[in-house]
Amino acid sequence: EPITLESKEAFHLLNHSGAHLMASAILNLFPETKFAIGPAIEEGFYYDMDLGRNITDEDLKAIEKEMNKVISANPTFIRENISKEKALEVFKDNKFKTEIINELEDGTITLYHLGKFTDLCSGPHVESAVKLRNFKLLSFSSAYWRGDQKRETLQRIYGVIQSSKEKLEEHLKMLEDAKNRDHRKLGKEMDIFFTHPLIGAGLPLWLPAGATLKRLLERYIQDKEIALGYDHVYTPVLATTSLYKTSGHWDHYKDNMFPIMKMDNEELVLRPMNCPHHMLVYKNSLHSYKDLPIKIGELAHDFRYEASGALLGIERVRAMCQNDAHLFVRADQIEEEFSNVVKLILDVYKDMNITKYSFRLSLRDPKDTEKYFPDDNMWNKAEDKLRQVLNDLKIPYEEAIGEAAFYGPKLDVQIRTALNHELTLSTCQLDFLLPERFDLTYIDPKGEKARPVVLHRAILGTTERFTAYLLEETKGVLPTWLSPLQVVVLPVNNEYHLEYAKLVNGLLKDNNIRAKVDFRDEKLGYKIREHQMAKVPFTLVIGDKELNEKSVTYRVRGSREEINVPIKNFIKLLEEEIKSKR
Amino acid sequence: EPITLESKEAFHLLNHSGAHLMASAILNLFPETKFAIGPAIEEGFYYDMDLGRNITDEDLKAIEKEMNKVISANPTFIRENISKEKALEVFKDNKFKTEIINELEDGTITLYHLGKFTDLCSGPHVESAVKLRNFKLLSFSSAYWRGDQKRETLQRIYGVIQSSKEKLEEHLKMLEDAKNRDHRKLGKEMDIFFTHPLIGAGLPLWLPAGATLKRLLERYIQDKEIALGYDHVYTPVLATTSLYKTSGHWDHYKDNMFPIMKMDNEELVLRPMNCPHHMLVYKNSLHSYKDLPIKIGELAHDFRYEASGALLGIERVRAMCQNDAHLFVRADQIEEEFSNVVKLILDVYKDMNITKYSFRLSLRDPKDTEKYFPDDNMWNKAEDKLRQVLNDLKIPYEEAIGEAAFYGPKLDVQIRTALNHELTLSTCQLDFLLPERFDLTYIDPKGEKARPVVLHRAILGTTERFTAYLLEETKGVLPTWLSPLQVVVLPVNNEYHLEYAKLVNGLLKDNNIRAKVDFRDEKLGYKIREHQMAKVPFTLVIGDKELNEKSVTYRVRGSREEINVPIKNFIKLLEEEIKSKR
Repeated sequence: EPITLESKEAFHLLNHSGAHLMASAILNLFPETKFAIGPAIEEGFYYDMDLGRNITDEDLKAIEKEMNKVISANPTFIRENISKEKALEVFKDNKFKTEIINELEDGTITLYHLGKFTDLCSGPHVESAVKLRNFKLLSFSSAYWRGDQKRETLQRIYGVIQSSKEKLEEHLKMLEDAKNRDHRKLGKEMDIFFTHPLIGAGLPLWLPAGATLKRLLERYIQDKEIALGYDHVYTPVLATTSLYKTSGHWDHYKDNMFPIMKMDNEELVLRPMNCPHHMLVYKNSLHSYKDLPIKIGELAHDFRYEASGALLGIERVRAMCQNDAHLFVRADQIEEEFSNVVKLILDVYKDMNITKYSFRLSLRDPKDTEKYFPDDNMWNKAEDKLRQVLNDLKIPYEEAIGEAAFYGPKLDVQIRTALNHELTLSTCQLDFLLPERFDLTYIDPKGEKARPVVLHRAILGTTERFTAYLLEETKGVLPTWLSPLQVVVLPVNNEYHLEYAKLVNGLLKDNNIRAKVDFRDEKLGYKIREHQMAKVPFTLVIGDKELNEKSVTYRVRGSREEINVPIKNFIKLLEEEIKSKR
Repeated sequence: EPITLESKEAFHLLNHSGAHLMASAILNLFPETKFAIGPAIEEGFYYDMDLGRNITDEDLKAIEKEMNKVISANPTFIRENISKEKALEVFKDNKFKTEIINELEDGTITLYHLGKFTDLCSGPHVESAVKLRNFKLLSFSSAYWRGDQKRETLQRIYGVIQSSKEKLEEHLKMLEDAKNRDHRKLGKEMDIFFTHPLIGAGLPLWLPAGATLKRLLERYIQDKEIALGYDHVYTPVLATTSLYKTSGHWDHYKDNMFPIMKMDNEELVLRPMNCPHHMLVYKNSLHSYKDLPIKIGELAHDFRYEASGALLGIERVRAMCQNDAHLFVRADQIEEEFSNVVKLILDVYKDMNITKYSFRLSLRDPKDTEKYFPDDNMWNKAEDKLRQVLNDLKIPYEEAIGEAAFYGPKLDVQIRTALNHELTLSTCQLDFLLPERFDLTYIDPKGEKARPVVLHRAILGTTERFTAYLLEETKGVLPTWLSPLQVVVLPVNNEYHLEYAKLVNGLLKDNNIRAKVDFRDEKLGYKIREHQMAKVPFTLVIGDKELNEKSVTYRVRGSREEINVPIKNFIKLLEEEIKSKR
């Protein structure tokens, strides 16, 4: 069933009312509770409250039980309009609601009553509680009042309501599935990464299997870019604060940066982005108009301060590797180079089998004269060029007015994670400002200095986030070319078959196939199941038949079929599969 | 002529006397000069002094002239024995000499007189000044009194004396050659790296050509190690200070570390080494005795505070990439794994054509009971094992008693740079302590916990230092497999030959050869010379003949011979050359 605007609205209505239902039940159980806010959200609803203590699993069960009790009585939602003064009187014992009311303009204020529970709310709501019977409370956590970590810590309970029992079951199954493909769960099962308190928050360590995947992804994009004429560089992860004062980042971005390190007479800081470094690389030599475009790429390590509550596995971290590049182009090359970047994105997505994404073209709001670099002519031309390229390539996109950066329009590729977060995977941004800031020039055909335009672009984004996305999309079933371990070789009996198993393993390795022999003293069936669970693409069984015939018997991941082929044929089959990237 | 102990001593005598000769001349010219110390060194001699101002190029010329004048008069070196009291009287106007005398034990003090100049000196010296006529003053710099940057800044003049005019000329030629192969000069000429004040001292940026070389070196060693069963990981360049308190580095090493960054509740620091990170990787999972050795490798970015005066191009930097690994082995595997590391070092040196190096086995001083991890049995066994391996491999080495680390014996490979600095390139160190500190274990055959031993090892050392060394050893003439640009394609006439030149270039690139077309409007001869200067291994000229015959005409770097071959043959020749690593 497709999600329509109508069904979205109906879902929102149910869940908004659901927050009241839950609050009503909580009030019955814990009359001293002070309620803060309880909105409907994309995934259902929640309510933040001060219970005077932390919530427990038992509480959740009791609340569900009480909600069913409330539903049995089937109270109706009753609306009431009162004055601001009266509202302050009603909520005089609740500092959260009082704070909200004080911020409202004078005039009529709407309340909703459900049983004993009264909330400050503009509605609308369902008619009565019986409509809310297909509910489920999902989880709880703590939350700051108004999201401000300097203010009160509250308890938050999440729930969801669907219009039918079937839809609720489907929803819960979807949540269970999302949990199973959460990259943090897969990351642990597949030995991709771990974190450690002695290292620090948001600083994952890549384990051998994860490191192999990271290396494959990074070499893949680096080689691809070099073949396309990008010049890759390595620049330090540090710079003086003066660099970011020159670039202008210091004023806007310093709260997202790591703390300053004072050393000798320098004020050093870990870089949050590498654009200024690349500006200096460009500036290090003279350039003619004939040399442009110059494409400076880097697998660039960047560091950003993220609030500890925002950190999430390898999706949101404090240290990351960006597949970044800066294209220094003449104004007349913008379209061609922008088009090349879009084609590269599509090409990479094809290789990676990424199919669920959307393009978003972020433009300035022409009415906003404050937020944007002031050059109407430049903006109009640039935006038209980007639109034209997307139209020529027949790429569907949405325009986001007012979402452009200060320094120019940009194209983002948006994806959704297992936890339903919308994230930007790839980006291409025009920048007319940084070349000014660093006084970048090239010599034009008349022998005069001219200003290049910069295209910032990232294809895989950060390796961390891309890996998280890839794990969630594939549910950990990585294509063979990206599988950390491609083949596991299992001797039936170590005494008789180990030598030949090692020989096969050696042959595979000589052909650049990632293989290993599993000679543990475990039953064959156990080992086969274990490696299938670990999502190894090919399992080879080596017994008498294989030894005598110089063949191998393989199973493809997820299949029980056993296929016997000469070793040469198996290597050829694997090489073709790897080359095809499937 | 080989350098013998005798010739070394004669050189030392000449140069020690030379320092007196120079000081004597300076005193004639600038009578107010306060002399500090003036030793003979491996490269000649220097004298540190307070001139009351900075020295100039003109001063150097004037001093040389005055030295010749002194030599003409041929004064003799006159020795005098006096009391400490008398010495303090003689040098009462010289605070430096006074400080030195005060530190001497009571008793007889020796002076040497040469003309008007008197120095505190135990000798010996040459008979008279005429023996010193083959001298040359080389350079000057500032230096701190006693090397302490909190004390007086002095002027230092370097010079050298040889026993004959011919030897002096040879020496100066050698110095000129060293200057030309200084990696800082080559690094600039070959676009390897640059530094920038907005980035910071000791933080080089790798330009595209340098970055290509760095990438090739790093992929080479990473691939080689992976083929040998190393598990490569990626770990963050940061950690909490608690990690270094756990490892024990905090007490000994914090002065070499970058400043602390306080963030949320954590005290973070850029890591000076990655050993503790790798200990946590090992500790992240359970290990059986059958799993050992486990070899954790990384191209690890480390950060060390070096005094700004010690920084030198990419040889000595503050941010570096270590080709590091930690081998977790059972005690019975030490010999085999140590032997494998030594073999890997030799194998890599062969690939890199490194021939001038020496092995140094650093052992504990058994008499020193303070400096070393207290376990005589362990030390004796371990040292014997390392010696045995080196003897079995028939590798010549010197033993350095008392040079072992606190935690175990080590093997270093020493090389000399163009500036004649002795540096460690590769290292392999046994460590019995870190496994204790991190409580690392494996399950032994009896099912009990046992402690692994750690081998720290680095083969290329840091990519920065290795590249500096490689540039200096090859004088920038890199082997084809490591040349950032392997082939440059020159169309004779852009109008007629550019298309075919591009086709040839494309074919080369398709075969993973690093090539480019040079289609600038410059004379062919000029372009050929320029690319030969830039040390590109192959220059292709593409004219009518080549276009018609689908051939190429190539020149090998350093040769004027032009060879015409079918394009296929050229590619085959190149592939063989690249594979051979010559």
